[in-house]
Amino acid sequence: MLGNFVYCNPTKLYFGENSLDNLEGELKNYGKKVMLVYGGGSIKRTGLYDSIIAILKKCGKTVIEDGGVMPNPTSVKLEEGAKIARENNVDLILAVGGGSVIDYSKAVSVSAYCEDDPWEKYFIRFEDVSCKVIPVGCVLTMVGTGSEMNGGSVITNHEQKLKIGHVFGENVFPKFSILNPVLTYTLPKKQMVAGFFDIMSHILEQYFSGTDDNTSDYIMEGLLKSLIHSAKIAVKNPEDYEARSNIMWIATWALNTLVAKGKTTDWMVHMIGQAIGAYTDATHGMTLSAVSLAYYRYIMPYGLDKFARYAVNVWGVNAECRDKKDVAEEGLEKMGEFMREIGVAMRSSEVGVTEEIIPGVAKATLIMDGGYKVLTTKEVEQILRDSL
Amino acid sequence: MLGNFVYCNPTKLYFGENSLDNLEGELKNYGKKVMLVYGGGSIKRTGLYDSIIAILKKCGKTVIEDGGVMPNPTSVKLEEGAKIARENNVDLILAVGGGSVIDYSKAVSVSAYCEDDPWEKYFIRFEDVSCKVIPVGCVLTMVGTGSEMNGGSVITNHEQKLKIGHVFGENVFPKFSILNPVLTYTLPKKQMVAGFFDIMSHILEQYFSGTDDNTSDYIMEGLLKSLIHSAKIAVKNPEDYEARSNIMWIATWALNTLVAKGKTTDWMVHMIGQAIGAYTDATHGMTLSAVSLAYYRYIMPYGLDKFARYAVNVWGVNAECRDKKDVAEEGLEKMGEFMREIGVAMRSSEVGVTEEIIPGVAKATLIMDGGYKVLTTKEVEQILRDSL
Repeated sequence: MLGNFVYCNPTKLYFGENSLDNLEGELKNYGKKVMLVYGGGSIKRTGLYDSIIAILKKCGKTVIEDGGVMPNPTSVKLEEGAKIARENNVDLILAVGGGSVIDYSKAVSVSAYCEDDPWEKYFIRFEDVSCKVIPVGCVLTMVGTGSEMNGGSVITNHEQKLKIGHVFGENVFPKFSILNPVLTYTLPKKQMVAGFFDIMSHILEQYFSGTDDNTSDYIMEGLLKSLIHSAKIAVKNPEDYEARSNIMWIATWALNTLVAKGKTTDWMVHMIGQAIGAYTDATHGMTLSAVSLAYYRYIMPYGLDKFARYAVNVWGVNAECRDKKDVAEEGLEKMGEFMREIGVAMRSSEVGVTEEIIPGVAKATLIMDGGYKVLTTKEVEQILRDSL
Repeated sequence: MLGNFVYCNPTKLYFGENSLDNLEGELKNYGKKVMLVYGGGSIKRTGLYDSIIAILKKCGKTVIEDGGVMPNPTSVKLEEGAKIARENNVDLILAVGGGSVIDYSKAVSVSAYCEDDPWEKYFIRFEDVSCKVIPVGCVLTMVGTGSEMNGGSVITNHEQKLKIGHVFGENVFPKFSILNPVLTYTLPKKQMVAGFFDIMSHILEQYFSGTDDNTSDYIMEGLLKSLIHSAKIAVKNPEDYEARSNIMWIATWALNTLVAKGKTTDWMVHMIGQAIGAYTDATHGMTLSAVSLAYYRYIMPYGLDKFARYAVNVWGVNAECRDKKDVAEEGLEKMGEFMREIGVAMRSSEVGVTEEIIPGVAKATLIMDGGYKVLTTKEVEQILRDSL
């Protein structure tokens, strides 16, 4: 654990099959006006919408609805939501959905009273929040982004062809999140496995960096092993409670700031994936899986020790009397086998990348400097070509 | 992750070599009167006392001192401390020390305004707090108990020959904890390694229970591997910053409620160790190491699968074509080798247990029911005899 850091994560998590029972108690902590945020309406089909409306009514809340949050929430939608929150003077934003709905809700919470253009302030200039923040609570229906216990929010600006994330401080973290694994059962399989890979990618982005012997790396190896084990079960039987509950828990801890403490982190797979997403509107997790193997093969020589450790500790590769490079490559091969087994996109052409858009995607890719190799835009182009 | 549970841990952690720089900022959140709690005076020898007094004075605080907290804080001392806190109407209790000092400070925080006898209410009847709680902040100088980020408090009553822990709710958790690995360097080696084993025991108490395939178990395997690796380095060079910082971080996460979520836990090694401590006043971690191998050998048949998994995943035992019992036993042997290497007590006779006191210690041992075998008092006696 190197460097000086602060850890603080005040989000209260209610976990389990009966966790929605806690919503009523939480609602008592907030005023009358609740802005109910959700996505494309699947919560209406599953009956969750009716259950939540009933709880809100029972608690005497005035409900202000803001549905139709898209998978990659846009800056235009954000402006509309901020206006709704401000004009209705809402006391709580209740996000019911997956990462997009929660990311959007957090963005609304810091934009309603923002004195500036929120997209410019938070996502272009990365400035801190300087206005009143509306509290956010969550009922999670889809796992992957970890948004239920962090300050992250990713917003897409179609006009500027940019998809950018801002990590807000703990005052923007959800006050509470309700995590019921059963609510994740209804998700279509493609979305489910995209979420699984998103979780895996969150861990790998934080794992593949640094040379120190850090406890966070050991925790991440545990999370990865549990994820791989449970994902294989869930893909065969999406209603295996134990597997789905483990995955839900791993998703939260993969991205609630814990495993990044005391080390550097990479995030280049997300930067490339988000740039693809801004061009193709493809499912987030699939854009990550589509470029991961090409990216990791490219940077492997710069972090060979860690890639060999990954092969041994996560994938059980036998390292005895073997060349480190062979061991590391076998680890990535096994990762590829796992990805094929759960059924995620293996190549960027599957998520809409073409030779024509590669220069644009590479140019839109934000270059981070925490990984084993600081890439040039030309190298991003190369990785995208390798991944086609 | 089985069952329904709540996770909430609001303690703010400041970690690193410069983490004491954050004390000033934190003190601004509290009133003028600060009760400074510490132990036997080692903080005066190291200069930490002077540094903290200087910061308190700079912030204009009135300091009420309560030093001399003993390694196993007593119910008599608790009564005195509660009186000091109440009569001085303190706004913050600042605990500077290890687990005993922090445990004691939390007990004082809930006892100052307690309308009842605190020992009887919290440690005999295990009742909830129903009075005003004084906020606690910590500067940690010794790792092991995890008290810096949980609600635990262990108090000893010499008259009744009882050492009992109460786990208080999140309103009693320290508001902030300052974790500087360098402050742990001055601890005598015996105390240092006792702390290392205390951490290991905390993890094992939570690991050896349950049959489900739980993410917490994977996280604990990661924590154990990191602990074993760093403890071996620290015992050779106590001033290896990386090793001591990893261990400090592991200690916190081993007992801040995370790894217990969604599973049952055991805690019988602690129950037996605490009963020994009430009789012999021996160092806590040494009472745990002294009985651990005898206890685990005794319960191994009741949780054989987990003991075999422990051998393979934590100690790297090769399980191919081998009897599960042999694999499990080799894991405990390797654990014993590690314990000898770091130099903890291997037998209970080393911590003052004699044939004569065994019946009394066994009778004073609280029987928990979360492990692989619910023990009888006769079985506790047997384990104590095996450990002599």
